[in-house]
Amino acid sequence: MTLYFEDLSAGQVFPLGQSTVDETEMLAFARRFDPQPFHVDEVAGAESPFGGVIASGWFTGSLFMRLYVDAVLADSSSQGSPGGDELRWLAPVRGGDTLTGRLTVVETRSSTKRVDRGTAIMRGELFRDAEPVFRMTFRALFGRRDPAAISERT
Amino acid sequence: MTLYFEDLSAGQVFPLGQSTVDETEMLAFARRFDPQPFHVDEVAGAESPFGGVIASGWFTGSLFMRLYVDAVLADSSSQGSPGGDELRWLAPVRGGDTLTGRLTVVETRSSTKRVDRGTAIMRGELFRDAEPVFRMTFRALFGRRDPAAISERT
Repeated sequence: MTLYFEDLSAGQVFPLGQSTVDETEMLAFARRFDPQPFHVDEVAGAESPFGGVIASGWFTGSLFMRLYVDAVLADSSSQGSPGGDELRWLAPVRGGDTLTGRLTVVETRSSTKRVDRGTAIMRGELFRDAEPVFRMTFRALFGRRDPAAISERT
Repeated sequence: MTLYFEDLSAGQVFPLGQSTVDETEMLAFARRFDPQPFHVDEVAGAESPFGGVIASGWFTGSLFMRLYVDAVLADSSSQGSPGGDELRWLAPVRGGDTLTGRLTVVETRSSTKRVDRGTAIMRGELFRDAEPVFRMTFRALFGRRDPAAISERT
């Protein structure tokens, strides 16, 4: 594992690469998890305020997550997330859209209870060209490279 | 459609029924969208702070969404959601868990710009027996049954 809590600091930006929305997968996801008419049916989508079928927000979030895992978490001491405080679906996402991800470290907080890990406040974003379509500010837990170094200091 | 903005009021509670986590589906979801070791690998999960493989939070949220659609949105004037301000994964979710959903209407807000719809602030929750495992407070847009009635009053 190469990315530990100690490697994170406020202001860091991680480019997360791109993901193109596969319409077949987008529709299958919606049929299973979010079968609202404007997520699963072309005619209903066209008649909706969205003017066409759009992705479930959970699908868009899941696409962000995959980019985040591949670019940052896969080779890290990630210990999951207790949640977030800002989740925004800023614009409809449609089949064929190419989304570019970005992760910004907003803040890092040492744990007062656990010397072996810390919390990072992260802002995750997806853009379609320059247009933001998804944003989430959340907490992410990471293990420390060297918990002993902290214990010895305290 | 039977549920419109006018039918929602603060304090209403909608039981959302139950969903049992299919471990095969949980793992397949994680392999596609959130392939962190503790989401996809039994051995890595056992060695993680979670003591076993746990569901991706996006999978848990997607299970909530399906319950919410089936119980509330399927027969409604839902126009989607711009996002939320509190997302909490309160306890690990594992294969075989049976989750019970609940939706509470926290507040309703008439739109100042659009007479044909309004916003509800919703709190969605999942419980395993009495233990809360997921909570999300979010905004949900619903069309009005009778937009003209508002226009005439203003």
